[in-house]
Order: sequence, then C-alpha cells, then structure tokens
Amino acid sequence: MSATHLHGPVVVIGTGLLGASIGLGLEHRGVPVFLEDTSPTNQAVAVDIGAGRPVAELDANPGVQPELVVVAAPPDVTVDVVARALERWPRAVVVDIASVKGAILAGLRERGADLTRYVGTHPMAGREKSGPVAARGELFTSMPWVVCAPPEADHDAVRLAKSLGADLGGNVIEFDAAEHDEAVALVSHLPQVMSSLLASRLQGTDLRLLALAGNGLRDTTRIAASDPGLWVQILGANAPQVVEHLYGVRDDVERLIRTLEAPTAPGARLDMAQLVSEGNAGVARIPGKHGGPPQAFAWMSILVDDRPGQIARLLTEIGEIGVNLEDLRLDHSSGRNVGMVEISVLPSKHDALVAELEERGWRVLQ
Amino acid sequence: MSATHLHGPVVVIGTGLLGASIGLGLEHRGVPVFLEDTSPTNQAVAVDIGAGRPVAELDANPGVQPELVVVAAPPDVTVDVVARALERWPRAVVVDIASVKGAILAGLRERGADLTRYVGTHPMAGREKSGPVAARGELFTSMPWVVCAPPEADHDAVRLAKSLGADLGGNVIEFDAAEHDEAVALVSHLPQVMSSLLASRLQGTDLRLLALAGNGLRDTTRIAASDPGLWVQILGANAPQVVEHLYGVRDDVERLIRTLEAPTAPGARLDMAQLVSEGNAGVARIPGKHGGPPQAFAWMSILVDDRPGQIARLLTEIGEIGVNLEDLRLDHSSGRNVGMVEISVLPSKHDALVAELEERGWRVLQ
Repeated sequence: MSATHLHGPVVVIGTGLLGASIGLGLEHRGVPVFLEDTSPTNQAVAVDIGAGRPVAELDANPGVQPELVVVAAPPDVTVDVVARALERWPRAVVVDIASVKGAILAGLRERGADLTRYVGTHPMAGREKSGPVAARGELFTSMPWVVCAPPEADHDAVRLAKSLGADLGGNVIEFDAAEHDEAVALVSHLPQVMSSLLASRLQGTDLRLLALAGNGLRDTTRIAASDPGLWVQILGANAPQVVEHLYGVRDDVERLIRTLEAPTAPGARLDMAQLVSEGNAGVARIPGKHGGPPQAFAWMSILVDDRPGQIARLLTEIGEIGVNLEDLRLDHSSGRNVGMVEISVLPSKHDALVAELEERGWRVLQ
Repeated sequence: MSATHLHGPVVVIGTGLLGASIGLGLEHRGVPVFLEDTSPTNQAVAVDIGAGRPVAELDANPGVQPELVVVAAPPDVTVDVVARALERWPRAVVVDIASVKGAILAGLRERGADLTRYVGTHPMAGREKSGPVAARGELFTSMPWVVCAPPEADHDAVRLAKSLGADLGGNVIEFDAAEHDEAVALVSHLPQVMSSLLASRLQGTDLRLLALAGNGLRDTTRIAASDPGLWVQILGANAPQVVEHLYGVRDDVERLIRTLEAPTAPGARLDMAQLVSEGNAGVARIPGKHGGPPQAFAWMSILVDDRPGQIARLLTEIGEIGVNLEDLRLDHSSGRNVGMVEISVLPSKHDALVAELEERGWRVLQ
C-alpha cells in the first residue's frame, strides 16, 4: 500500500475541537475514523456529529490495525498518550497535534518510544469556541499544517503525516521541532504575552478614559482575550524560547523608561525615534497574504452608514469593478452610527478604484 | 452674535492632512476659511483643493477679524504658534489640535498667553497618508473630538471650540488636559510602544520562521508601522504619563521572566495563568462599537473563495437576512487562495444567521 494517501482506519484520541474536526474532515473524505476520549460525553458528541465511531468497534476486530493514530489530547498529557498509542498499535504511525513540539519529542525519547513511527504535527487552526460541538471538517482549510519529523522517523511515516495535513486541506510546511518552537515563540507566543501585558494595564483604570479607545488599542489587545488554561500549557512547554525574546523586550523597556524619564536629555529624541523605527523594520518583514512576500498594499477608507446591507452594497460594486480586496477592516469609531470601511488593494488598482467609487457616489478617503 | 455655530472667518495655520481637512470641511459648510503654512507648497496645494484662501487676503482687509483660529501645526511648535496667534488677532478664539494637551497648556501659561481665548482640542482622526493632498472634509465624521478647556477660558470660547468639532461631524467629548493625556497614554501611546517593542523583535530573525505568522501577529504589530518623526513628538510631550504605565509593564515582564526561567517551579503555572487572566480582565473593559458598554459579540467564520465579489455576495445575503455586522475580519491564511471571513453579530442573532447561511450553502465555522 502507498503511504501517500490515507486509507485508514484512523484512530483519533481526544475529541475536542481539533480532534473532532480531524475526524469529521477524514470521514467526509471516506476515511474510516475511530474515536477515543477520556470524557465519555465528548466522545459521544463527536460520534453523534459524524466524526467517527467509538474505538471499541475497532478493538472488537483484532485483525484490523489502524494505519494512523492522531493524538489530539491536551499538551500536558500528549507524551503519555503518544507513548501508549505506539505500544498499543505496534504497526501504526502515530502523530500528535500539540502546539509545542520540542518538549514532546524529548519526552518520548526519554521514554524510549519507537520514534520510527512517530511524527509531530501542528495544525495552526482554531476557533473562539471549543469542544466537539464547534468542530468543522473545514477547520484546517488553507491554514499552515506544520510537520516536524524526528530524524528516526521512517520515510513512510513522514509521508503519511504530510498526507493527513494535505487531505484536510492544510498548507503543509516542514520544520524540525526546535525550528517550529522557535517560530511559534516569535509569531504566536510572544504576541500573546505582549498583548496580555498591554491589556492588563487597562485593569483598574477609569472607564471614562477608555471612551477614547480606537482600533489601535482594539487590535493590539484582541488576543489578550485568550484562554488562560491553554496558555499555561503552551507557555510552560515553550518557556525557554519565549523567555529569550523577553530578555530583549526587558532591555528595550528599560532603555525606553530611561529615555522617557528625561525626554529632553541629549539623544532622548533619537532613542524614541529608534524604538519606532525598529518596529517599522520588524513589521515590514511579516509575509503578505497567502504567504507571499511582504507587500505594501494601497489603503483607502470609504464612509458607510451603519445599516445592514451597506457594506455589502459597497463590496458588490467593488466586485463589479473587478478589483480583489487584499484586506478589509471596519473602523470602530465611538459615537455616531456612521462607519468607515478600510480596504487595501494592489497599489496598481488603487487610483482607478477610487475614481470608480467616487463616480458611484461613495465618499472615499484615500 | 451667538457662539454656538461657526460663522467665520476661520484661520487655519498649518495645512497638513488635519489642517487642510478642517479647512475643506468648513468650506463645504459655507464657513469662509483662510490658510497659512510655513511651506508655500503645502499652502498652495491646500488652496487648490478648496480648503480655503491664502491668509494674505484676510490681512488685506484690516476691518475683518477671524472668529476662530485653528492651529494645526506640529506638536513641537504649537505653543509658539498659538501664542503668536492670540497676539496677532486680539479678539479671536484660538484652538490647537495637537494630540497631547497638558504640555501645551503649561507652555502657554508660562508665556502669559491670554487663556480666556484659548481652548485645546484633539480630533482623534488620521490616515496612513499625510499632507494636504490626502485631506478630506469627512475625515472627522463620527470620530472622537476631545475638547480640553483651561479653567480661564471664556464660556463662549469653549462653545466655539465644541461647535467646531460638531460642525465637522466629530463626536465631541470634554476632558481636562491632564485627563486627556492620561487617557491617550493608555489607549494610544502605550499600545504604540508595546506594538513597536514586539515588532522590533522580528528584526534579524529567520524569514522562514515568519511564514507561520497569522492574524495574532498581524493585529498586534499593525500600528508598529507608524511614523517615527511624529511619535518622537508625541512620546516626548506625554513622557511622564507613558512612563508610569511602563513601570507596570517592566514589573510584569520581570515577573514573567522569573516564571519562565523555572516553568516547573511551584506556583509557576499559577503565575502564567494570572498574566493571561489579567489580560482577559483588561480587554473586557474596552467599550464596544459606538462607545457602548463592552459587549461580547458572537463570532462565526465563513469560508469564501478568494475571488472578487465573493465577500460581497456573502454580505449581500447577510443584508438580505437583515442582520447587522458588528465587526468583520478577513483571515490571512498562508497558502491556498481560500479565505475565512470572520464576522461578529449580536449574540441573539447568531444561531439564526448560521442556520440561514448554511441553508444558502455557505460553509460556516461557528
């Protein structure tokens, strides 16, 4: 049999949002899935929504071995569950989907697990909601699906882990575990920490002051609403990589405090400009949409009444004009029920679109 | 004459984005505007786009005094320009629009300026673009327009400053200068600093790691692209208020570093949970859209092809269903040209909308 496509059976251990979504996606593609969860309720719900059948039905058939076992358990029990799965199904490939990879690989190595059949993966997808009720087979569509193969892994095991991500519509990217943890520390864990640090400053302040809040504050604090229980496990498992960046943050904060304590001292203005310039340089390195190179899109804002259908009418006309949106944001201005829609397009499309929209009677702020 | 509505003439000193936009907005409303700028080019452009006439035409008519002078010069020269304007037009009310208010009031007091005729204002509006070419009369529509009247200010002067904001469509809010500076330090200056500190960590990193960047990183670093030249003036003028918050940030960073250096020590997990929980508590205090109380909107994501008109079609149907969007975001997933549109609606509307959309064939991730 070829390992380039999943045939199953596939066992999914852990039927939360991600595990149940993997089950749904595979079942939709005709791959038989068997589910196991320490919570009988979660497992029953996952079965009810069509994410697979109870693993007991597989056990009842000793002749049948799973081709692949997906461990979708919480990060802090993943090592145990993966190790037990490798022993329980001695011919199956076992992958986990925890959001930190190095600690899990190290834990498995310590336990002498059979790493020829283990591959770590990290589907970078999620929802505000959790649990199997929120599961959707399309959850992974076009999202990064990171595959971290240990050096010991069999070639077929790696191909099977990659086909899992591909079959579920993910954008498969290969990293080694250390690289992956370094990457998520930078693009996910540090932003979470900085957003939480900023948002916590809003505690105990006069609510009247917050009436001046705009998109700047809203964007920088949005992810501060994340689940503490999950982040304890993530930050705990990736602490060494995250703390390295925090040393740099601490030095910069110290430098800025000294500068702002004597804002008219020689060099103070240069220090402030340098902080903002370094931020400019950093943000310019973030890749553009669809993983393309960073691109300076041309922004414009259009005034709309805050009524159902207004934004739709605007976007319908932009569609008629035949321009594709690169990004779109609603401006949350306090007060009146009039809003701005900020859109970005390829620079080459900007001027023609502004002219067309103004011709159609829209008020555009270029 | 009543001071509750502007009659003009109005003099605008400084014809950058904001000054020229004020001139345009007033001229649209039939208020005669006269413009002055140290840059003859800026002034000429502002005159060309219809933001007003050269102030020389007013000077040529010694019998006519401006009713109001709006100082839209850079923050670091605002005190001088306001003081000179108060002397040059001894019967005019003079307002400035600088984004920091306490330092300017203190500077004017030091110089013994006539504070009965001065009122500070801060229209919280802007664009990515700058200069008079980007000016729009609607720039201030529904944005906060903060009015900071010194205790010495005449009642009519305050009413005139408020009517300027109201006539331009702004949402007029009264603060005293100290309150205003405290507010913007928290909702604008601290987020800018934290975003710049985060984004500067991206410098000199392996670009391959940044391929995993998602909306979390993009949202938290968006304002890090701001103009260093302007922010030097803002941070410099509001340094004492900003540094107070940075002391708290420094303590939290120190605490978190100690925690992450020993992530398995007793209490470490509690410390990490506390950081994220404090962020939850802070972000929950940010007012909702239109300045209403914080509201937990119900989010859902809808899968769309990344083609012109797709998002329009979705929003058209949402409009047909009669549900109003509270917020909308495009999900920048790397890889495939399939996107997610995340929308939030009032919780009471959520379930019905999901059902309707799925009925119409949309793939919805609740």
